[in-house]
Amino acid sequence: MTGIAMIEAAAARLAGHARRTPLLNAPLLDRIAGRRVFVKAECLQWTGSFKFRGGWSAVSALTPDQRVRGVIAFSSGNHAQGVALAAARHGAPCVIVMPADAPAVKIDNTCAYGAEVVLYDRAAQDREAIGAALSAERGLTLIRPYDEPQVIAGQGTVGLEIAEQAAEAGIAAADVLTCCGGGGLTAGIALALEAKAPGLRVRPAEPEGFDDTARSLASGTRQRNATLSGSICDAIVTPMPGEVTFPILHRLCGPGLVVSEDQVLRAMALAFAHLRIVVEPGGAVALAAALFAPDLPETVICTASGGNVDPAIFARALAA
Amino acid sequence: MTGIAMIEAAAARLAGHARRTPLLNAPLLDRIAGRRVFVKAECLQWTGSFKFRGGWSAVSALTPDQRVRGVIAFSSGNHAQGVALAAARHGAPCVIVMPADAPAVKIDNTCAYGAEVVLYDRAAQDREAIGAALSAERGLTLIRPYDEPQVIAGQGTVGLEIAEQAAEAGIAAADVLTCCGGGGLTAGIALALEAKAPGLRVRPAEPEGFDDTARSLASGTRQRNATLSGSICDAIVTPMPGEVTFPILHRLCGPGLVVSEDQVLRAMALAFAHLRIVVEPGGAVALAAALFAPDLPETVICTASGGNVDPAIFARALAA
Repeated sequence: MTGIAMIEAAAARLAGHARRTPLLNAPLLDRIAGRRVFVKAECLQWTGSFKFRGGWSAVSALTPDQRVRGVIAFSSGNHAQGVALAAARHGAPCVIVMPADAPAVKIDNTCAYGAEVVLYDRAAQDREAIGAALSAERGLTLIRPYDEPQVIAGQGTVGLEIAEQAAEAGIAAADVLTCCGGGGLTAGIALALEAKAPGLRVRPAEPEGFDDTARSLASGTRQRNATLSGSICDAIVTPMPGEVTFPILHRLCGPGLVVSEDQVLRAMALAFAHLRIVVEPGGAVALAAALFAPDLPETVICTASGGNVDPAIFARALAA
Repeated sequence: MTGIAMIEAAAARLAGHARRTPLLNAPLLDRIAGRRVFVKAECLQWTGSFKFRGGWSAVSALTPDQRVRGVIAFSSGNHAQGVALAAARHGAPCVIVMPADAPAVKIDNTCAYGAEVVLYDRAAQDREAIGAALSAERGLTLIRPYDEPQVIAGQGTVGLEIAEQAAEAGIAAADVLTCCGGGGLTAGIALALEAKAPGLRVRPAEPEGFDDTARSLASGTRQRNATLSGSICDAIVTPMPGEVTFPILHRLCGPGLVVSEDQVLRAMALAFAHLRIVVEPGGAVALAAALFAPDLPETVICTASGGNVDPAIFARALAA
């Protein structure tokens, strides 16, 4: 079980390897929001998202023998790139199983970070079976994207930094809004803040129509999304909250927030104009909530959790 | 005359007020460049450019009496916004003289930072006369954009941070490429590195057709640009190197570098894709040189000096 000791141990392993990303704000953005908005810019993290932290935490926690045999992950996105670079830096072989129809740039980048990419046909093949066969044959360790204690610990280092940076900025009380998919980042931050900054309360943010976490928190049991396709925020759309992550969220988080696709695009454009950072749609959900949700406190901190976005979608946000 | 003591004094006044911007890099960007490229991301500075440093340095160096009377600057761009916010934070009145045909967003932002904007007609009015009349009447102190020792000292704090961050990254020798207009940033960084990191040599970068500094360094005397209009890098186009700044550049800098407009747009797109930062054309000139210039050393540090860019121009860079 991930706890503050495991998060602090992950932070020690990440020191000098992950970036301490800045907590940004801008007077003109505050004016638009009608409140103070601080943005934890994880889009500036290695590989462009917080996922590098979880990947590094998991790979660095392996035994020497496991490391030599290598790791495997299923992902076409930020988790793939985070695990690939973390493994490469540890000299660990890395297999990433991706759908053959994933965008070419994501496949290229994952290869460029040093991973062996195994493509499968979504319609005809079962990725779990492919992964199981490879793992058995080569003794690879599976790194799950969120239901994995060491991954949650790695993402929790974002929370340790938020606690420090909030204290430096004189913030004793605030809502901390997270971009929430499976809940690894949200759970990690919530655990870190419970220990280090109890005046900061985590609230997960999600896109409209894919608000499984908000509904799960409201009902107290894990709820599913009706569909997994059709969101520009695809990076944070998962079937339901994680088995490992949800009990942590249920214990520690405030109510979930839900934002529209239009609000997400506007948040991306405002981050461009006032913070000069590139945020992907799934990474802008928390900022959209910080800017546009009603009934938030005077001070809000939000994660800009990733910045890997197709230029055409970014141009669409700028034109909106 | 600006020297290291004045820069260190400016750094002390800026501490806790200016951001220590990150020095970013990315393995995939290094691969494209064929060398190690580190980017000092001043686009993440308050008001979106390093100009806030010079503005803060100058305003904070005023006597209490000067501060009460206020400051004045001529600018439609980054210097205007930097001075406006710095003055507002010091409670000093601030007048910015801008052409009436400046983009509305720049006028709006300068007002939003708390300045009084005085518009003039470029064709019919003399801005110097307007400024002189206002200064005489109200006792305002003029803050020049680069030929001003306290402004150079403020920009020099970028150099102090580069020296520290290069040492942290284990870099003992590198070329430091700067986006160069009037030379305030370049002179400040060169003075700081002379004292703190003598293995780092500054080289100014400019857009093709507006390479007054490169030609001045080559000839040893200040040369003029043939024209001041027609560059997408308008933020760094000035008539000629500064009277105060050029002797510093001449003494300390290596040869100037010149990049094409197409290279600038590609650098903006690569900073978007691999660093997830927003860089304006004038702020991307040094990165363009770092990526595409021949005959550079194995390790290059460059400034991404500003990020205030029109969305349409940014979209053009992404589509290129």
